[in-house]
Amino acid sequence: MRDSNREWILAERPEGEPDTDSFELREGERPEPRHGELLVRVRYLSVDPYMRGRMRDAESYAEPWSVGDPMQGAVVGEVVESKSDAYDAGDHVTGNGAWADYSVLDASEVAPVDPSVADLPAYLGVLGMPGRTAYFGLLDVGDPSPGETVVVSGAAGAVGSVVGQIAKLNGCRVVGFAGSDEKVSWLTDDLGFDAAINYKQVDDYRAALDDAAPDGVDVYFDNVGGPITDAVFTKLNLDARVAVCGQIAHYNDESVPTGPRKLPQLIAPRAKVQGLLIGDYATRFEQASERLGSWVASGDLEHRETVVDGLENAPDAFLGLFSGDNIGKQVVGVSEP
Amino acid sequence: MRDSNREWILAERPEGEPDTDSFELREGERPEPRHGELLVRVRYLSVDPYMRGRMRDAESYAEPWSVGDPMQGAVVGEVVESKSDAYDAGDHVTGNGAWADYSVLDASEVAPVDPSVADLPAYLGVLGMPGRTAYFGLLDVGDPSPGETVVVSGAAGAVGSVVGQIAKLNGCRVVGFAGSDEKVSWLTDDLGFDAAINYKQVDDYRAALDDAAPDGVDVYFDNVGGPITDAVFTKLNLDARVAVCGQIAHYNDESVPTGPRKLPQLIAPRAKVQGLLIGDYATRFEQASERLGSWVASGDLEHRETVVDGLENAPDAFLGLFSGDNIGKQVVGVSEP
Repeated sequence: MRDSNREWILAERPEGEPDTDSFELREGERPEPRHGELLVRVRYLSVDPYMRGRMRDAESYAEPWSVGDPMQGAVVGEVVESKSDAYDAGDHVTGNGAWADYSVLDASEVAPVDPSVADLPAYLGVLGMPGRTAYFGLLDVGDPSPGETVVVSGAAGAVGSVVGQIAKLNGCRVVGFAGSDEKVSWLTDDLGFDAAINYKQVDDYRAALDDAAPDGVDVYFDNVGGPITDAVFTKLNLDARVAVCGQIAHYNDESVPTGPRKLPQLIAPRAKVQGLLIGDYATRFEQASERLGSWVASGDLEHRETVVDGLENAPDAFLGLFSGDNIGKQVVGVSEP
Repeated sequence: MRDSNREWILAERPEGEPDTDSFELREGERPEPRHGELLVRVRYLSVDPYMRGRMRDAESYAEPWSVGDPMQGAVVGEVVESKSDAYDAGDHVTGNGAWADYSVLDASEVAPVDPSVADLPAYLGVLGMPGRTAYFGLLDVGDPSPGETVVVSGAAGAVGSVVGQIAKLNGCRVVGFAGSDEKVSWLTDDLGFDAAINYKQVDDYRAALDDAAPDGVDVYFDNVGGPITDAVFTKLNLDARVAVCGQIAHYNDESVPTGPRKLPQLIAPRAKVQGLLIGDYATRFEQASERLGSWVASGDLEHRETVVDGLENAPDAFLGLFSGDNIGKQVVGVSEP
């Protein structure tokens, strides 16, 4: 008999804000890799806001999970058994796997990880999907020019923190919205943001933007939605670009949220608002990874991960995303090497 | 002493829906052209929804009028006195002038009009600013491909009716929203729209779109906003494009209107929403005018004007735009030749 394995499954669909009742930790046998597959000891797993959408019984860009399905997402871990010529036991890889102690991954769908370049959690953040999302969302959709003002919501998150730093590398003035003084300090003192606004302490976001973005907003990278976005839309400059990457303020809404209508605000500035999904840029992932990797290596791009230890705490780590518990990328530490 | 002249001025700023109290007809002397200017006998003047914005005391793309300023807009008329080598008395021209019997126009800022190509009112509609707005808004911002579905709000208006026909010329399925059975018949029977929806008779716009646009919406050309737009946004296809040309449903709002939040709806389809102003395309006006003129000449592009006779009725014609009194372009007949 193979060793045991713990795995989180979707126990029930949440209504509104999810809680731990939505998840169930099941104990079972360690899965066996088939030809072309790898058995991976999960070291870290990623929890991401987009997963809230997969918990819904509704068609969207990510296929909905069924109740009883294993929770899945990006993982990084060590190959313990390989049925592929591409990897050997002991290699580190990243790919999509289960929230589990052990996960079977298709060798053709993983990427190698070099622990000497960056710590393993970084491969779930700045060197993973969030970093690439920031890269293409900012550079392709936002298309900032030197001297322009870039505003980022969710600025201390996995995506936002990279967006702001790439904007600085491009010579922009960068303003971030974040939800604690500690996050604000990290953005301005460590990451080089020109200004950051603690939206939980400030009442009048428009007035705060008058100070922080006195020349208006040329590019808005939105991870959040809600009142922050409402305020930013009143400050859009001529030819402004808005990249709609996420709307975490609305992911737990059970009905269509309402707010100020924004289309009338787009005409005078001829602003462009565009939704983005990172999968569309798959053919250019390598390009992004190379540049992000070299910025990390040179120290131009800082990164931080908030690690919650223990597979048993994965649901709490996920739920914490909606209250902003994380600074930088939220990951779950599943096993120490 | 020169002959007399009547001229409409802004008498007071409206709050909410304007009424005739906002306007005052003043009698004065006929103005005298200076060097480089033309005295034009106004034949037709244009009333347009964007003028509501100029009646507000707020910065926008069109400079606000001051109380006491003459009402202005596109006019077409006959030169009665020329202080320019470019035009002679008897020539017909179009340009921006006053809501008046006679208006002085700068010869360098008018365009010649050939009454043998099209009736004079057409130069305020299909061959004027509305036609060019439709042309660039649809082709540049909407960028439709053959076989795609294009939905237009305000479809029986000056801009919308041209948008739909150009979309048909481009091989698209075209669906219009309009506010009367007569308008719907005009769109489908005369202009070749594939379907049209009388939004004043239909309760469920989403269900109506399921029938009229069964393959979803690839391009939405929005002149209106409000509940029509709310419904269309729920039907956006992958890579959909939305051209925000006008939002007449909201022009009389005194506070920021609220409605369903649309940014969350943009992510899955990666939709692009862009505000447009026709002035940005000034360098290409000639190209548009040539193509629009040749389509009109060939009969590929039909046009219709709703004429209210008498300068004294100009405010009523303007106010009628907000209740949808016009089919095609609304103009005011100021003088018969």
